[in-house]
Amino acid sequence: MTQLQLSDTEKMIEFAIAQAHTLNVTVNIAIVDTAGHLIAFQRMDGALVGAIDIAIKKAYTAALFQKPTHELGERSLPGQPLFGIESSNGGLITFAGGLPITFSENENVEKVCIGAIGVSGSTIENDLSIAKAALRL
Amino acid sequence: MTQLQLSDTEKMIEFAIAQAHTLNVTVNIAIVDTAGHLIAFQRMDGALVGAIDIAIKKAYTAALFQKPTHELGERSLPGQPLFGIESSNGGLITFAGGLPITFSENENVEKVCIGAIGVSGSTIENDLSIAKAALRL
Amino acid sequence: MTQLQLSDTEKMIEFAIAQAHTLNVTVNIAIVDTAGHLIAFQRMDGALVGAIDIAIKKAYTAALFQKPTHELGERSLPGQPLFGIESSNGGLITFAGGLPITFSENENVEKVCIGAIGVSGSTIENDLSIAKAALRL
Amino acid sequence: MTQLQLSDTEKMIEFAIAQAHTLNVTVNIAIVDTAGHLIAFQRMDGALVGAIDIAIKKAYTAALFQKPTHELGERSLPGQPLFGIESSNGGLITFAGGLPITFSENENVEKVCIGAIGVSGSTIENDLSIAKAALRL
Repeated sequence: MTQLQLSDTEKMIEFAIAQAHTLNVTVNIAIVDTAGHLIAFQRMDGALVGAIDIAIKKAYTAALFQKPTHELGERSLPGQPLFGIESSNGGLITFAGGLPITFSENENVEKVCIGAIGVSGSTIENDLSIAKAALRL
Repeated sequence: MTQLQLSDTEKMIEFAIAQAHTLNVTVNIAIVDTAGHLIAFQRMDGALVGAIDIAIKKAYTAALFQKPTHELGERSLPGQPLFGIESSNGGLITFAGGLPITFSENENVEKVCIGAIGVSGSTIENDLSIAKAALRL
Repeated sequence: MTQLQLSDTEKMIEFAIAQAHTLNVTVNIAIVDTAGHLIAFQRMDGALVGAIDIAIKKAYTAALFQKPTHELGERSLPGQPLFGIESSNGGLITFAGGLPITFSENENVEKVCIGAIGVSGSTIENDLSIAKAALRL
Repeated sequence: MTQLQLSDTEKMIEFAIAQAHTLNVTVNIAIVDTAGHLIAFQRMDGALVGAIDIAIKKAYTAALFQKPTHELGERSLPGQPLFGIESSNGGLITFAGGLPITFSENENVEKVCIGAIGVSGSTIENDLSIAKAALRL
């Protein structure tokens, strides 16, 4: 299986920070492998200290479930099928800002998840916008 | 950056306890630096033992997110943007009683967060009232 | 049973800080009740951040076992009867700087433990000296 | 107080990776602020997954105690003054590879700790050599 390389994460973080500058916010950015283990992390100067762990947990959550964190969030509201899922796996974050990173050799092959990114420190809209920018989505 | 000194915390705790006496309640009071590390703590005689950890976590939460804990609480209700945030950072407390401590050299300079206070042991209304009194808000 | 009051801790911390000034060091000082629950804590400006938790755990350890932490330490070395005890109770600290606080109505009555103090941030000799000064030992 | 900037960490990590290449090993590199909060992290391709947490904890330990991790390690052996310290603060790592990052405006001013670096994934000799290279020591 194709694996995310450290060199891949540098461009992603560069794109993320460029988008954060455009939005005039400061965030934490975490990138993990398919197992949820950290590959790279950067805290922009002045970004919220409380959002370090959230960025890492968003990436971790998106990797472990191979889904955007906000999709898990919709399904884990009271009354929904996955209510309470956030207490599993040592603690998940299920609001927006975590996205799986996918890859396919060519357009005839289905994309596979090769890791995930998590962004935290601004509004969830900005966090998600920055995560998307990192992946050129 | 200006840092909160131990001597600053003494007056804050004195004001807090005075307000607790006015309200005829007993509480725990914790003050942390911007990183969430404890600077000072006092438990009034008879204050709830279960509220020790809550006072410390309220201060920790307000410092890490530079926001009153109840503002995080409103935004972390089911269906709100930050639902589930309380499981991050080793456990947050997102109900009222935690406030950031801010400071500016003079009124022309924007205030910066230099720490936070957390109060717990009575109702959330009283806890918040005591936290505000500590900061003369 | 006589209980440690918040007002008692103020003098103890005052004596501790005076001794720290004499030794020209900065430390964290924690005082707990007989159950190990925090009553008061102060971090002197510049004291080691890593020693906050250690001061609290020294007080906690001395209270739970009603012994100076260094006595437990001697008995928990490899080959000694209590080897490994430090992993109990959510984590103990068994080196010098934690002392039980004892009290008796008069000299004909045996002293009872009413709480404990923990000091951390300097050498263990200084930490213990400061803890003793706090209790006028 | 001078604070470590994200841009400072980029060169440190670059130097670290250059040294890792020289030694023909792969490691994890973590950089934290004085409070122990993560600023930057990189895992070289192929570096041990179990060493991610160790690199972060080495940096955290060196920051919280403003000392190289191996100095704490020497002092926490059985019979030494700080035996058992590693169970404090949520878990420390006290073998080589964590170093405080110090700074002074000029040579007439005493250096202050502005953060710490932790390296893990190879032998402790290589990990320390890489941490030193990162700081040009």
